[in-house]
Amino acid sequence: MKFPEAVEELTEYFKLLPGIGRRGAERIVLAMLDWDESLLHSLGNAIADLPKNVGRCPECGAIAPAGKLCSICSDPRRDDSLLCVVETTTQLFAVEKGNSYRGKYLVLGGRISPLDGEDGSSLNIALLKERAARKETREVILALSSDVEGRATAAFLAELLSGLPVKLTRPALGLPAGANLSYADGATIAAAFSGRIDLQ
Amino acid sequence: MKFPEAVEELTEYFKLLPGIGRRGAERIVLAMLDWDESLLHSLGNAIADLPKNVGRCPECGAIAPAGKLCSICSDPRRDDSLLCVVETTTQLFAVEKGNSYRGKYLVLGGRISPLDGEDGSSLNIALLKERAARKETREVILALSSDVEGRATAAFLAELLSGLPVKLTRPALGLPAGANLSYADGATIAAAFSGRIDLQ
Repeated sequence: MKFPEAVEELTEYFKLLPGIGRRGAERIVLAMLDWDESLLHSLGNAIADLPKNVGRCPECGAIAPAGKLCSICSDPRRDDSLLCVVETTTQLFAVEKGNSYRGKYLVLGGRISPLDGEDGSSLNIALLKERAARKETREVILALSSDVEGRATAAFLAELLSGLPVKLTRPALGLPAGANLSYADGATIAAAFSGRIDLQ
Repeated sequence: MKFPEAVEELTEYFKLLPGIGRRGAERIVLAMLDWDESLLHSLGNAIADLPKNVGRCPECGAIAPAGKLCSICSDPRRDDSLLCVVETTTQLFAVEKGNSYRGKYLVLGGRISPLDGEDGSSLNIALLKERAARKETREVILALSSDVEGRATAAFLAELLSGLPVKLTRPALGLPAGANLSYADGATIAAAFSGRIDLQ
């Protein structure tokens, strides 16, 4: 027994997505076979039209309506003196969930990772330099992942921006809010203790 | 920060799939934003064209190229005297993986489940009756799930077909191949012991 060719073809497309293997892709396609024709048409068109409707914000590199600023860069209430550097738009959303940062962003579009063939040439580094050099920018927060590649990228960017009259910072490492000390890993405990805060 | 409307719309579509929540749907859409325009076009068209290219086999109800028999019903080497009833095409694939069954299939399209509003009216029950009544059919294997609803559906079908001159069977319940007795659940052990086989 073979799946019809159209099902096989669609399965191959969904297998391209991160975290979706053959079984998961098949499950998606089999579920779609139960959908109405009109729903499949709308979904198909929405996917085909993605490049027409969605682009990158020219000010920060985040996902934005095609040809437009993202909702943060176009918001006059955001503080232009703070620039938070993240790897992806998903990380930008994570920072926004903290509901405390009111500055602007720069989405790098990845991180430097020689093993994955990323030497930084496809990242928004020129845009970062330009934004960091603007006279209103006073602080650049390097909010990259705290794994090896994130730290290497942050070190590279810190070096790159070191000549500019901006303060360079990174978010604090430490115990997550509400965490029980018993379940924290060693690296987190070490960071929390070396960055301990004076209570007096 | 808000996602562009086109991203939100696409996320809502993927949330309709079983086992995909808001986070998973967002991850799919964000990954697609990195795809080439031509790939997104091909995927969009493949989805929109599904109803045109894929249908149900008129002989067994399995997924098949639109307007055609599935590859099993059109295979003259399959044994017409055996009819295996399964709930879904995915279950049909599972039986095929066993690589021992050489008969034909009937895909019900679900099972009777009053709690989910399925009273059997959308199932291929008329097709099953017609197939079971054919003179070449000698045995109907009710290979439904062995949970409550699967057993109830099998009981209903057994009653329905009881007047026909066919043998009704179900697959054996027992320990999975290669299983360690220590890890089997009670219901499986009970089934394996009550169906124990004479070695002499």
